[in-house]
Amino acid sequence: MATVKHKILILSGKGGVGKSTFSAQLSFALAAMDFQVGLLDIDICGPSIPKMLGLEGQEIHQSNIGWSPVYVESNLGVMSIGFMLPNPDEPVIWRGPRKNALIKQFLKDVDWGELDFLVVDAPPGTSDEHISIGQFLQAAGLDGAIIVTTPQQVSLIDVRKEVNFCKKVGIEVLGVVENMSSLCQLLSDFKFLRMTDAGEQNDVTEWVLEYMREKAPELLNLVACSEVFDSSGGGATKMCKDMGVPFLGKVPLDPHLCKAAEEGRSCFTDSRCGVSAPALKRIIEKLVASEMMSRMDNGA
Amino acid sequence: MATVKHKILILSGKGGVGKSTFSAQLSFALAAMDFQVGLLDIDICGPSIPKMLGLEGQEIHQSNIGWSPVYVESNLGVMSIGFMLPNPDEPVIWRGPRKNALIKQFLKDVDWGELDFLVVDAPPGTSDEHISIGQFLQAAGLDGAIIVTTPQQVSLIDVRKEVNFCKKVGIEVLGVVENMSSLCQLLSDFKFLRMTDAGEQNDVTEWVLEYMREKAPELLNLVACSEVFDSSGGGATKMCKDMGVPFLGKVPLDPHLCKAAEEGRSCFTDSRCGVSAPALKRIIEKLVASEMMSRMDNGA
Repeated sequence: MATVKHKILILSGKGGVGKSTFSAQLSFALAAMDFQVGLLDIDICGPSIPKMLGLEGQEIHQSNIGWSPVYVESNLGVMSIGFMLPNPDEPVIWRGPRKNALIKQFLKDVDWGELDFLVVDAPPGTSDEHISIGQFLQAAGLDGAIIVTTPQQVSLIDVRKEVNFCKKVGIEVLGVVENMSSLCQLLSDFKFLRMTDAGEQNDVTEWVLEYMREKAPELLNLVACSEVFDSSGGGATKMCKDMGVPFLGKVPLDPHLCKAAEEGRSCFTDSRCGVSAPALKRIIEKLVASEMMSRMDNGA
Repeated sequence: MATVKHKILILSGKGGVGKSTFSAQLSFALAAMDFQVGLLDIDICGPSIPKMLGLEGQEIHQSNIGWSPVYVESNLGVMSIGFMLPNPDEPVIWRGPRKNALIKQFLKDVDWGELDFLVVDAPPGTSDEHISIGQFLQAAGLDGAIIVTTPQQVSLIDVRKEVNFCKKVGIEVLGVVENMSSLCQLLSDFKFLRMTDAGEQNDVTEWVLEYMREKAPELLNLVACSEVFDSSGGGATKMCKDMGVPFLGKVPLDPHLCKAAEEGRSCFTDSRCGVSAPALKRIIEKLVASEMMSRMDNGA
């Protein structure tokens, strides 16, 4: 890891908040900025990175200096525990010590070459794997962690634990990203249902689009947003203030971003990701700027 | 556990798919059907059940016959690892053996009394805790497991692992619930944005509602749906077919259901949960019917 300039750990309190999607899109964005990027997925129970980088079914090769990452582009290498599983449908039911040994090997034995950024997608939660990951990465010179959450209280409760975990083990929290802040999408991309008195739902989408074109054409180009997850508790913004950690920004829940992630594509080259890509870009630019600043501060 | 008729384990491959929300609403529904119900939350890293049952800050009491659950209603008792944590913000960073010991104690030492149903909300994934949980519950006579997922491929990949885990350890899969199938909500409940040429977003909600009332009043009572998570791979329906396990049904992502969960309320007594509550009810009725049938088959 001595040849890696910046090491960033991506954490979440709960699973399913978009941690891997963020890790994947962050890696795509850094690579598009011409950095040399590595993405390491050590989520043993559910390694999503192969799917999200379009690398399912790839195998890794071992050389005399370690495992070689799989390259999506010449400056974006990926390594995932998912590449090592013989059958993606088989669960990895390993007791703690065996898991910790594999994670350590993954952190140590990958031949990354010269990297500007290594993005490490960790398992959700604060289990014993995290103690091992934290210890190893800190010894190797970890920049810090980004914590991904949704605005819900149930998710934020777990993020508070995650922040305290970082404080306890001495990992700097680079910032918190609030994902799935709300669902935003062009009104004309929705499906429309009419509920009958009998409680049935009739699809009236075609009729609605025709009706709008005729009666209310100005509606067609509007974006409709739904605050999917209740954020009346103040969301991540308030939690960050309470706990004294930086808030990096909000990313709306965008079906086109979900689709890009499922298909292993960058959202930054997909014009349909118009509500999510700009939000992600602002967060990543903020992050890169502060990382570069800290390097200058350290005289590197 | 000898005084518990039916024991149902709620599993998910990934976190954040609504496993705890389902466990909580299932318990509310069973209690509303006048069953005697227990809800046990053994998700050590992120126990969400106290929040979702409106029981935050409660403490549990110990008697000479074991720990006493906290009662939401006279026929709905709840026990959660969350009740035992001195500070909800502190992470539980325990190594495997200590976690397994606590989980075992939770499964063994709670004084449930006579129960019709015990719903066990497990941690996500297939980690070593699951081996312990599976072993213990099977010895006590587990009916089987319900697996909660979203329609996304990344979630379904993990569910396949979960199904194979159940097969491997001999747990019957009672069925799979596809949660967050799509977001559905009254069109008049959305917020509307107009994107300016400079990329800014202006909130035009009030104008839109006025404009609709005037020009296109028929739109106001329609439900708008967005397929948030890509299900072009066939979703849980196809996965269940492939793997030979029962599909229980789909539950749409409903902001009012999320809010009910955040506030510790039953969605079945909230008239605003009109798109999610009927879907959940159908699933639960199907489940109860098949549980009752299997009891008759067993001559109980």
